[in-house]
Amino acid sequence: MNPRVLEIAGSLIRKVAARKRPTSIDLGLGEPTLLPNPAHLDFAMQRVAERGLKYSHNAGDPELREAIAHYYHYPELNRLGNVCVTTGSQEAMYVTIKTLLDPSQDELLVVEPAFPAYVKMAALEGVACRTVEMLEDDGFAFDADRILAAVTPATRAIVICSPCNPTGRIIGRAQAKALIDGLAGHPKKHVWLIHDEIYREQTFVEDAAYLAETYPYTIVTNSVSKSNALTGLRLGWILAPESFVEHAIKTHAWITSCADTFAQAVALHIFTTLEGVREHAPWYREQRRAVVEALDDAELPYVAPDGSFYVIVRLPEGTSSIDAANELIDRHDVLAIPGVAFGPSLEGWLRCSWVAPAERVREGFARIAEYCAAKVVT
Amino acid sequence: MNPRVLEIAGSLIRKVAARKRPTSIDLGLGEPTLLPNPAHLDFAMQRVAERGLKYSHNAGDPELREAIAHYYHYPELNRLGNVCVTTGSQEAMYVTIKTLLDPSQDELLVVEPAFPAYVKMAALEGVACRTVEMLEDDGFAFDADRILAAVTPATRAIVICSPCNPTGRIIGRAQAKALIDGLAGHPKKHVWLIHDEIYREQTFVEDAAYLAETYPYTIVTNSVSKSNALTGLRLGWILAPESFVEHAIKTHAWITSCADTFAQAVALHIFTTLEGVREHAPWYREQRRAVVEALDDAELPYVAPDGSFYVIVRLPEGTSSIDAANELIDRHDVLAIPGVAFGPSLEGWLRCSWVAPAERVREGFARIAEYCAAKVVT
Repeated sequence: MNPRVLEIAGSLIRKVAARKRPTSIDLGLGEPTLLPNPAHLDFAMQRVAERGLKYSHNAGDPELREAIAHYYHYPELNRLGNVCVTTGSQEAMYVTIKTLLDPSQDELLVVEPAFPAYVKMAALEGVACRTVEMLEDDGFAFDADRILAAVTPATRAIVICSPCNPTGRIIGRAQAKALIDGLAGHPKKHVWLIHDEIYREQTFVEDAAYLAETYPYTIVTNSVSKSNALTGLRLGWILAPESFVEHAIKTHAWITSCADTFAQAVALHIFTTLEGVREHAPWYREQRRAVVEALDDAELPYVAPDGSFYVIVRLPEGTSSIDAANELIDRHDVLAIPGVAFGPSLEGWLRCSWVAPAERVREGFARIAEYCAAKVVT
Repeated sequence: MNPRVLEIAGSLIRKVAARKRPTSIDLGLGEPTLLPNPAHLDFAMQRVAERGLKYSHNAGDPELREAIAHYYHYPELNRLGNVCVTTGSQEAMYVTIKTLLDPSQDELLVVEPAFPAYVKMAALEGVACRTVEMLEDDGFAFDADRILAAVTPATRAIVICSPCNPTGRIIGRAQAKALIDGLAGHPKKHVWLIHDEIYREQTFVEDAAYLAETYPYTIVTNSVSKSNALTGLRLGWILAPESFVEHAIKTHAWITSCADTFAQAVALHIFTTLEGVREHAPWYREQRRAVVEALDDAELPYVAPDGSFYVIVRLPEGTSSIDAANELIDRHDVLAIPGVAFGPSLEGWLRCSWVAPAERVREGFARIAEYCAAKVVT
């Protein structure tokens, strides 16, 4: 078999999550608990009744591609040819890494702490991958100088997830400008930025930078999974310069042919409906307020989330995050994800999602606080 | 960018198909024209209303995996652990090739004429690929001796599409036995057979061999696309020994996470409904009868299809299949696919699908006969 596949280890996140009991308070979950708006699905059913469920173009339904490009309206990326519709943002990222990087010479730089998929995808493709760690003392804020210092002549692309899973940080406008200015002076032209915008509609600060607005070598990946509680629909997209998208479409075509036409119709309705991808945003804003209040009440050390639906919580000095996650599920019936799953820089932290009902999340933090207090005493 | 992606040429099939006019008789189309049974979609909508649209396990909903394994009931492949649900049979094949073959040493052998995807996928993965041509004089019948003679010590897997796109031939029991017996004596153990069963429910002869029934190193790929007129749903699967499936699941997980949960619910209803994947089979059987009659009436030379919804038609000696396809669309308003798109062995032939209404298909063949007659005269 392919040695690159054999070498892939199982997912630590899934391994921990599998220990959940029916009674557990779930702060591990990486998907919304809201139900999707049935109007979007009804529209898709209507379409199927009229047209059946045929293949679309490889790159997706032209109407949907246009709607996505128009909605985000990034300069130079606002046309149909800038969009390739994919099987969730996972395939969007996979196709991007596979298409963009030449395994014989290019290197991918991942800003950590990070969702493990980027590094695993690069490994699967035989693409060299390095990581650059943001600093704990700085609350894991995006730091342009640190990122630029990690760029080598082989660096072909940098992955930035903002709002960030797991830290909840966003890259602000000043850091984005510093990063982009720095890349312009880089000896190897066209270091690409891959902006994973999957938590875009869970942004709680005004200063969020959208890299595609100012840097022409930006590839955006996103989906309706988190914005519209449609993780299971597997409907995402790549939004990028046409010169890149035309090749990404070929990769995508041989991997999956096209995205599910039913899912594409659901997404078309979302993008042509008034609230669209923003329809759940008020719920997250209110939930974040309640979550921060609960964290303060529990007196837990945490990094206030700029976006996403996660918060990282500091464990007492010297506590292994895997041990903590195991002990929390065993003794306190709370599921949280060990920080080390997102890179060594997040060891000593837990990633807690806060999509469960606010009272459950509050109780979960209280139990984590209890666990931490006992830890400090022992 | 990745040079393997840059080198991929556009699809000849799609290039020809793009020339179709609204008035054209479409014998090019590779998807059913029937509408799907709405009961399957209604069931999925009901599920979504109850449960939302969440991620499934990477390998798919356990209930669906079990239903698929039980339905086909291949010995040793009849359990949940033998199934990985994928984004159509395209991803099933892609994941299979990517997982099974080590690009540094393994070779894929493709039995031609063949759907171009297998060779393109191998190229995308940097996997060496050879083809073995079935003989025109033999009506492109599957020939175990020819296949075995093409096996080298590097051959790790052989792709067989039966019923075959484009030829409509099936591999019969005698040839399957000869092939499997021959592989058992091969110095390199475990040459895998990848059986693309996508046209399984369009089988019109009694003698069809199902390789997984007798050869333990068989990987089956399939989907509900062709059987249930659900090409756009992108719901397929890998059915294989668990020792392979466990690694295929990892590859699949990093490419697409999981198949669309809505699509999985549609498939679950199909597999737990009386007619299930066979519900459209009677239509194809009747259509095939009408098609063969029309071909005979048109006095076209063709290979009688054992299965699939294609028939290959012989062009007059010396006619380029690309020229013929272009001239047919330009002068006769008929879309058919040039044989050379499926490998050099099918040059001089056209692949005609017969999913359009029977009277349209009959008219299409009459026009092709007219074209051929004029060609012979000139």
